[in-house]
Amino acid sequence: MNYTQALQTRWINHNTLLCVGLDPDPRKIPAHLQDYDDPLLHFLRSIIDSTADLVCAFKPQIAYFSAIHAEDKLETLIDYIHHNYPGIPVILDAKRGDIGATAEQYAREAFERYKADAVTVNPYMGGDTLEPYLAYSDKGVIVLCRTSNPGGDDFQMLPVPVNGQSQPLYQYVAHKAATAWNRNGNVSLVVGATYPAELAAVRQIIGDMPLLVPGIGAQGGDVQAAVQAGKTPLGSGLVINSSRAILYASQGADFADQARAVALATQTEINQYR
Amino acid sequence: MNYTQALQTRWINHNTLLCVGLDPDPRKIPAHLQDYDDPLLHFLRSIIDSTADLVCAFKPQIAYFSAIHAEDKLETLIDYIHHNYPGIPVILDAKRGDIGATAEQYAREAFERYKADAVTVNPYMGGDTLEPYLAYSDKGVIVLCRTSNPGGDDFQMLPVPVNGQSQPLYQYVAHKAATAWNRNGNVSLVVGATYPAELAAVRQIIGDMPLLVPGIGAQGGDVQAAVQAGKTPLGSGLVINSSRAILYASQGADFADQARAVALATQTEINQYR
Repeated sequence: MNYTQALQTRWINHNTLLCVGLDPDPRKIPAHLQDYDDPLLHFLRSIIDSTADLVCAFKPQIAYFSAIHAEDKLETLIDYIHHNYPGIPVILDAKRGDIGATAEQYAREAFERYKADAVTVNPYMGGDTLEPYLAYSDKGVIVLCRTSNPGGDDFQMLPVPVNGQSQPLYQYVAHKAATAWNRNGNVSLVVGATYPAELAAVRQIIGDMPLLVPGIGAQGGDVQAAVQAGKTPLGSGLVINSSRAILYASQGADFADQARAVALATQTEINQYR
Repeated sequence: MNYTQALQTRWINHNTLLCVGLDPDPRKIPAHLQDYDDPLLHFLRSIIDSTADLVCAFKPQIAYFSAIHAEDKLETLIDYIHHNYPGIPVILDAKRGDIGATAEQYAREAFERYKADAVTVNPYMGGDTLEPYLAYSDKGVIVLCRTSNPGGDDFQMLPVPVNGQSQPLYQYVAHKAATAWNRNGNVSLVVGATYPAELAAVRQIIGDMPLLVPGIGAQGGDVQAAVQAGKTPLGSGLVINSSRAILYASQGADFADQARAVALATQTEINQYR
């Protein structure tokens, strides 16, 4: 089962568009976990166990592991998800981007070393730099398009001429994704929930291709607006990520239960608008 | 001594604009090194020892380490350079880019974990995503502008309107770098040697800011054209990278001597046109 098929199964059979982002900030992990052998892994395994039936994907952010010399923990964590929850795809959020020879190494890092089912990548360097990832036809390649941060405007909203018409750069990225890069049917795009109008514009361009949508929860994006703008006609096509609002729902002994409660509420809210 | 000062010292006192890129592909390491305890580290230390007096910087590419689970070797290597060749700055080529909270983690990865003197970053997500790196005022922040690969045209050459005039996106990135991001004097740009006209255009925009210039050697960029187009009026301002042509100059027992010979020839050729 490839990445897109795995998502379809979770969207339809498990009735969820929710993705839980695994961004473990050691300063925010509940204090009582310091008594465990490995507080960070215990914390993340508990979050995974308490939310797995509610998600269409998990999305670990590699920087939170790399900053603290914890690549081994990231490997362990992805193994844990694959072993205990087969069928739930793992998106490695790494936003890689480099020339071909180097991109081959990044693709190996994501797909062979970490065994991720999909990876996020940056399009600035151009289509040839995406080829090494695209060649893994059963893996998802999730290209940054319209990001959820305020500075996303700086370049992504600049008007560029395409076929005699002016369109914002992010729409041109979406256009390239749909027409040039999706030969293997394994391309997705990142569009932030904080920009529902842009979600709608990208959906128009890309048809049924999946969208990874960060920006709800701690970043303040509106669930109703994002789902209504970004969904496919059949009410799916979205991987809606929440990280901090779920991970840090409680700092107490009940952190896993509270994480589940927030995840369930978010899943339910999303499903209202599908 | 901050990153820019370290470069100045190497450019002037050591008379070199050459940067050796450390991209260790295990398949290309001389076969006889397989007898050593750690062939990869032995190979790279030999390259460093044989070229250190000829370079203004070393640039390890992190993907080549991450793909093979060798982050520890990268730490060891950077320590080795700092300890044995103090004053030679280390550029971590990582091309990171993410929202602020995550960029903080990537900045920690580059500057605190690896103790790099500079890191390459991707501007697509906007100015706010660069702030966590810029805050390390003694470190170099090297922003992708006009990359050396063929697909660099896809987005970087698109005309965008700025102050009523049309200019290619990469020039607008250069403009932002010079006017908005360089408050601490620690910003550089990446412009490929394969595009001398663009090197000249960027030099016009950014004044004396340093440029990291990949693309000579294996990528085919012309040294004379690149130096003449990109240098400052005083004949410096450039960090001209060569990786594969130096690293893999020979597959034999003389690999370090041959690497030195290519590095020396490249340094000399560059200096002809300063």
